[in-house]
Amino acid sequence: MSTGNAKKFAAVEAAKLIQNGMIIGIGTGSTVAFFIDEIGRRVHEENLEIKAVTTSSATTIQARNLGIPLLDIDKVDEIDLTIDGADEVDTAFDGIKGGGAALLMEKIVAVNSREYVWIVDESKCVTQLGKFPLPVEVIKYGAERLFKKFVIAGYKPTWREKSPNTRFETDQEHFIIDLHLGKIIDVSKLAFTLDTTVGVVEHGLFLGLAQQVIVGYDNGEIKVLKKSLS
Amino acid sequence: MSTGNAKKFAAVEAAKLIQNGMIIGIGTGSTVAFFIDEIGRRVHEENLEIKAVTTSSATTIQARNLGIPLLDIDKVDEIDLTIDGADEVDTAFDGIKGGGAALLMEKIVAVNSREYVWIVDESKCVTQLGKFPLPVEVIKYGAERLFKKFVIAGYKPTWREKSPNTRFETDQEHFIIDLHLGKIIDVSKLAFTLDTTVGVVEHGLFLGLAQQVIVGYDNGEIKVLKKSLS
Repeated sequence: MSTGNAKKFAAVEAAKLIQNGMIIGIGTGSTVAFFIDEIGRRVHEENLEIKAVTTSSATTIQARNLGIPLLDIDKVDEIDLTIDGADEVDTAFDGIKGGGAALLMEKIVAVNSREYVWIVDESKCVTQLGKFPLPVEVIKYGAERLFKKFVIAGYKPTWREKSPNTRFETDQEHFIIDLHLGKIIDVSKLAFTLDTTVGVVEHGLFLGLAQQVIVGYDNGEIKVLKKSLS
Repeated sequence: MSTGNAKKFAAVEAAKLIQNGMIIGIGTGSTVAFFIDEIGRRVHEENLEIKAVTTSSATTIQARNLGIPLLDIDKVDEIDLTIDGADEVDTAFDGIKGGGAALLMEKIVAVNSREYVWIVDESKCVTQLGKFPLPVEVIKYGAERLFKKFVIAGYKPTWREKSPNTRFETDQEHFIIDLHLGKIIDVSKLAFTLDTTVGVVEHGLFLGLAQQVIVGYDNGEIKVLKKSLS
């Protein structure tokens, strides 16, 4: 387990990518929180001029409190660059997201961004996805039926709860079912299965989206990994 | 254009399939409204004992007013038989649904039903799908961006409105975008594209779901078409 330092190193490095005039997307989570702090600092101390699209009510509140100008995603033509965290990243830059329950808005912002970068601490880097429970956002109507189908499929589902026996609701008022898969042999096949399952709104497999991953280490080291286009 | 008679003929014929002890699913729309009336009549006059799962607030209200016992979909293990309408049906029993904006709940009920039957008037039977605008239910967040993507893809989208310049919201508080495709050459390919599009909750292509189609004609004729399993 990494300390907050590794997260902060990656976040501050990512903030260097942000330039005047940009429309940026801001993800959600504990690593991104450091990024928002750093952008807030640059807005005030360096007069950085940017506008930001957010991916959750939590991110919106933090950014607004720091005086970062916000934009509605439906008022922009394209987002120049989005910085987000990830719960697991493999060597192909595929990942699992949604530990913070914002996967739906995060994926919508991701697919509308020209550049999309993940910031993670070293503990998030894996060779195979699936140890982190895969979040699936589902329509409430029929959710019990869907949960049973996931049990039968061997997905080892659990309900995301906000407190014992009270289900968590996303910003869009859906439920989240976490799949405890251990390891995912074929990520594309699972993504396809979930995409075509009635009642599934979105899932936490983010495949082929991240172009760059910035990894922070507790010792202060930072690795900037860029997708090879060859 | 068929009159209400053809719809009613199909609906009353479908009601004959309903037997004591069944858990039935009830769709939504003008043809299904006749079916609900007939089930209500049988409950009161023939002491028909059934319980029903509904697919929209409109259907729930009509069924409740007629004294039809209702069940929450998440309280049943399986629905024995669902009767629903369709906006277009082709010769392979693939269809377009969602003119009444209930496609999401309708599809959830459909995939949880052991038997699934459509009732339509003759005007709904086509050789190729697509003249009827294809409804796509979408997340509000980022919906403008999605609409622009549909324009670029040549899908000729329009917003479903409840009144001029006011967008319609579904029972699950999503928007509906109607795609004016004219004809759909490859329904499976389009379904796959929409299923994997971020921000799309569900679409009105119901493929491979209906096992039986009951067609009513203005002259009183009824055709019961069953899927060939060969």
